[in-house]
Amino acid sequence: MIKITLPDGSIKEFEKGTTPMEVAKSISEGLARNVISAKFNDTTVEVSTPLTTDGSLTLYTWNDEEGKKAFWHSSSHVMAQAIQDLYPGAKLTIGPAIENGFYYDVDFGAQKISDSDFKKIEDRMLEIVRGKHDFNMRSVPKEEALGYYRRENNPFKVELIENLEDGTITFCDHDTFTDLCRGGHLPNTGSIKAVKIMSVAGAYWRGNEKNPQLTRVYGISFPKQKDLKEYLELLEEAKKRDHRKLGKELELFTFSQKVGQGLPLWLPKGAALRERLENFLKKAQKRAGYEMVVTPHIGHKELYVTSGHYEKYGEDSFQPIKTPNEGEEFLLKPMNCPHHCEIYNNGHWSYKDLPKRFAEFGTVYRYEQSGELHGLTRVRGFTQDDAHIFCTPDQLDSEFKKVIDLTLYVFNSLGFENFTAQVSLRDPENKTKYIGSDENWEKAENAIINAAIEKGLNYVIETGEAAFYGPKLDFMVKDALGRQWQLGTIQVDYNLPERFNLTYKGSDNEMHRPVMIHRAPFGSMERFVAILLEHTAGNFPLWLMPEQAIILSLSEKYEKYSQKVLTLLENNEIRALADNRSETIGKKIREAEVSKIPYMLIVGEQEENNGTVSVRKHGEGDLGSMSVEDFAQLIKKEVNSTLQSFEV
Amino acid sequence: MIKITLPDGSIKEFEKGTTPMEVAKSISEGLARNVISAKFNDTTVEVSTPLTTDGSLTLYTWNDEEGKKAFWHSSSHVMAQAIQDLYPGAKLTIGPAIENGFYYDVDFGAQKISDSDFKKIEDRMLEIVRGKHDFNMRSVPKEEALGYYRRENNPFKVELIENLEDGTITFCDHDTFTDLCRGGHLPNTGSIKAVKIMSVAGAYWRGNEKNPQLTRVYGISFPKQKDLKEYLELLEEAKKRDHRKLGKELELFTFSQKVGQGLPLWLPKGAALRERLENFLKKAQKRAGYEMVVTPHIGHKELYVTSGHYEKYGEDSFQPIKTPNEGEEFLLKPMNCPHHCEIYNNGHWSYKDLPKRFAEFGTVYRYEQSGELHGLTRVRGFTQDDAHIFCTPDQLDSEFKKVIDLTLYVFNSLGFENFTAQVSLRDPENKTKYIGSDENWEKAENAIINAAIEKGLNYVIETGEAAFYGPKLDFMVKDALGRQWQLGTIQVDYNLPERFNLTYKGSDNEMHRPVMIHRAPFGSMERFVAILLEHTAGNFPLWLMPEQAIILSLSEKYEKYSQKVLTLLENNEIRALADNRSETIGKKIREAEVSKIPYMLIVGEQEENNGTVSVRKHGEGDLGSMSVEDFAQLIKKEVNSTLQSFEV
Repeated sequence: MIKITLPDGSIKEFEKGTTPMEVAKSISEGLARNVISAKFNDTTVEVSTPLTTDGSLTLYTWNDEEGKKAFWHSSSHVMAQAIQDLYPGAKLTIGPAIENGFYYDVDFGAQKISDSDFKKIEDRMLEIVRGKHDFNMRSVPKEEALGYYRRENNPFKVELIENLEDGTITFCDHDTFTDLCRGGHLPNTGSIKAVKIMSVAGAYWRGNEKNPQLTRVYGISFPKQKDLKEYLELLEEAKKRDHRKLGKELELFTFSQKVGQGLPLWLPKGAALRERLENFLKKAQKRAGYEMVVTPHIGHKELYVTSGHYEKYGEDSFQPIKTPNEGEEFLLKPMNCPHHCEIYNNGHWSYKDLPKRFAEFGTVYRYEQSGELHGLTRVRGFTQDDAHIFCTPDQLDSEFKKVIDLTLYVFNSLGFENFTAQVSLRDPENKTKYIGSDENWEKAENAIINAAIEKGLNYVIETGEAAFYGPKLDFMVKDALGRQWQLGTIQVDYNLPERFNLTYKGSDNEMHRPVMIHRAPFGSMERFVAILLEHTAGNFPLWLMPEQAIILSLSEKYEKYSQKVLTLLENNEIRALADNRSETIGKKIREAEVSKIPYMLIVGEQEENNGTVSVRKHGEGDLGSMSVEDFAQLIKKEVNSTLQSFEV
Repeated sequence: MIKITLPDGSIKEFEKGTTPMEVAKSISEGLARNVISAKFNDTTVEVSTPLTTDGSLTLYTWNDEEGKKAFWHSSSHVMAQAIQDLYPGAKLTIGPAIENGFYYDVDFGAQKISDSDFKKIEDRMLEIVRGKHDFNMRSVPKEEALGYYRRENNPFKVELIENLEDGTITFCDHDTFTDLCRGGHLPNTGSIKAVKIMSVAGAYWRGNEKNPQLTRVYGISFPKQKDLKEYLELLEEAKKRDHRKLGKELELFTFSQKVGQGLPLWLPKGAALRERLENFLKKAQKRAGYEMVVTPHIGHKELYVTSGHYEKYGEDSFQPIKTPNEGEEFLLKPMNCPHHCEIYNNGHWSYKDLPKRFAEFGTVYRYEQSGELHGLTRVRGFTQDDAHIFCTPDQLDSEFKKVIDLTLYVFNSLGFENFTAQVSLRDPENKTKYIGSDENWEKAENAIINAAIEKGLNYVIETGEAAFYGPKLDFMVKDALGRQWQLGTIQVDYNLPERFNLTYKGSDNEMHRPVMIHRAPFGSMERFVAILLEHTAGNFPLWLMPEQAIILSLSEKYEKYSQKVLTLLENNEIRALADNRSETIGKKIREAEVSKIPYMLIVGEQEENNGTVSVRKHGEGDLGSMSVEDFAQLIKKEVNSTLQSFEV
């Protein structure tokens, strides 16, 4: 008998040689139907692998990342088989699962492959999966494995095997197909119900441009046809919501090669949107006792030597700025914290003065490879909604909770309802990796976990994921398409107070070290606006919209009345504009819909005579006619319903 | 007979050999009494110099810079004589007039001089000036001049004479004293009525630290005792108003050696003050049709090669920022205009879209030698209240006037009532130095002059002072101490539209070049706050004050009522704080006076019972007791009286 420990900590006894599938069956038939792959003592195993020792077993289904990975890895075997069947002589190289689906790099030789071939491959794949072929792993001596691929005339696999250090090589067979493989598969091909070849692209063997060029074939597969359909719809929707596309259409931001890649230029509408977001947070922060500061965008190299950033990031970042004489060296600031430490150090604080909460919309610059840049989500310069709280260790608990309150307020006001928290703690087995006393770490970790519980957060704990300077809590939000983004972060820091020799006088009249909290609810203005664009497809909450209403006159005759309405709206602090061109009302409405302006106010003879406007809501249609005052009330009500003020 | 042209253009005939003093007498006895020095055909002459040819003559009095210069230059001769009398063997070197007074660099040998010696020198100077000795210039052959100073055993003057290229040397005599001198003196020592030795400092001969060290004796002199008294009072007042001192006392900003010299850190109160100034201007700019943009603080080197800034300033500025790979080079932005040109270029504009007015509080970085840095007035990083207007040549006239309106609104709202404008035009003799067509230059220069006249500005024209890219208008303001500062600037630019290939489609359907206006009413936030501090001594207009009121409780018993008053004030959007410490009311008042809080609200038993506050105004005293509502009205009224909204 062997003892198997399950993830819930329970231990069950099984006969030696029991497979993970049999364990699944012993738990429930449902689990057995859905189990895809398994992990035994940190090693991926097949569900058919006999277990021969005591150990921990985790079973994965489609709902686990590991399960999806096995599903897609298995599917890449199927795609490879289909390709070999359809393109005799095509040489396979490597074919891993990726974030969404899988790919295989193939040397098609003289044969060409294009979009029009995808259907053929998909059809062959569906034929194969319907055969419900088992995936079987087997060990093969190195020489035999080499022999196999030499006979297949595949130099790529030969090279791979030659570079493998273990004497024993594993092959995976299904149907008539064999591949070099480490394992981690579905029980059989039968659960693959839907497949799609997504695209092809060029790729160099082993990523080196001196090597032969291969064709990378991307595919994805699902356990249900419905899942594929949903995925493709999601992709279509995501394309429409791509913030780079919307940012251009809504005239929010642009890039210029001359200014430099990854350095956004905020156009008037984008700058105004961003300012509204900043003012919204400023107002809440003011209520929460933060004080704004302003610091320069460069700092003496010495500053970053003190903070430790230079040693850690100096070589991989923008290089030092030299002066024409006097031999000084400055760095573009990658973080605001050292500057804020120097502001703290400008004062002499007693415990009664703490916490000090210094906030700044601080623009920082970090070098990224040009290939890594992506719209506003991966840039070389961005503005953090940064703040640093300097408090006594006793205040950490309540300060941390206050930061969570503020962050939740931000998410709620902006329509992010679906989020989780990740609490990163230190590795208790490896305490020397971290700075700060055991006592402080325990205090801080408990503070974070208690805060997460008390605030009712849906959180996971990641042991060993803390920064070396302190534990942290990161917020992950799900957008309208179910995609996950990391937004706000709250980090405890024992390191910088030490490095900058920060002090306060305690009630005991002795000097003490404060604790620092770094926090940024938005994360960065650039990233946040990008995610908000993709989340809302540009239909921001009304309080945030660049234009809240547009007046559409039925003809130029009503320009004067239109102007009067505009003034009335502006007096009510409604952001509005008027379209008095001599275009048809149909065209005006269509254009207003494209620019996503929430309310269209149509004015013609009737409206002028009655002193009213005919209101049309974006994406919804006619709301009937009303006085400008009533419309202003409607706007005010809608704004107030999404934007409550922050309660401390 | 000779023909003398006077500054008003009139031509008078005089006998050959007439002196400037005789010309002055022919105009008026008053002028003759006050004339100090003269310029004849661009050469400084003594008022006693016989004029022997036709030419233009300008006469200077104490009210002219040139007159003061001659006055102080003459006084330095007197000081030199006094020093020689009192310190036999002291060797004179050079002794020019400076902005305020004069100095003389002296080799005192083994003798020491300190503050306690000043009185002695002043007394001897007063003795000399009372002798009403004429200043007489005479030409001396070079050899004779050298002989004189060799006999005097003065190697410094010998070296000076040896380096003079003209064969003829001029000496100036008065009383028993002779000095090597180019001329430009008072008629005689009699008009010097007040003298003051200000300080001594070390200075190297010819500014080279390898040369012998000399003692620089600073002095100042005036035509009236009263003028000296006023000057010393002004100095005393200026010291109190020094923005570096006030900035520290009011906790507005600081500097950190670790962050870097010349890089201000704005503390909470300073950052809030600055934000109020920015919001004030933003609001006015919005009404004036400006649109805010946001651009990064770096730009690709290519951007500045295109703009021409790299060629012009590259070597003397912060050096390029290299990337760890990909070989890119960026520069810290010294100006915002290239970025704004790229924003303009992001759109396609028709003449109907213009003017476009892009505004940004853009932080720029320019290297300055550390010795040149001074508080917030001379820094290495500063935020311009920048905007660029892109308009058709036809719109230039009205746009320029609108910018003047906005600038005057800013000055009025901030209590600068005393200002002049300097209009800088191109040198018509040297047109090749400038870019742009004659037609455009004439249009732009006329636009500026007409605008200045129409707006009733007190302006001077400086021909040849235009930038190579266009004419400009600079505002000079006088502060409360009568000191002149350059603030806002408005510049026309034909160059950047050319370099960035900016275009718009005209009504003729052809592409045209827009004109650019650069403008910054504050100049920079740093400089403006510094000047405002020195102008107001920290007593800012009420709308701008960091704290508008402080509640001083008579004892801790009234803390609850004090808190209630604070809430009421905050509800009325009055920035207030409460001092409920157990200190005497006298001490609380003294501290509030030092921190310049405009209103002190004293609360005790009587106030609590009556629901009132006893109001005390900073620097004025008791205003009696009133309800919080009445006090809020008083504040609102005072704010509204200085801060009207900008009328377009």
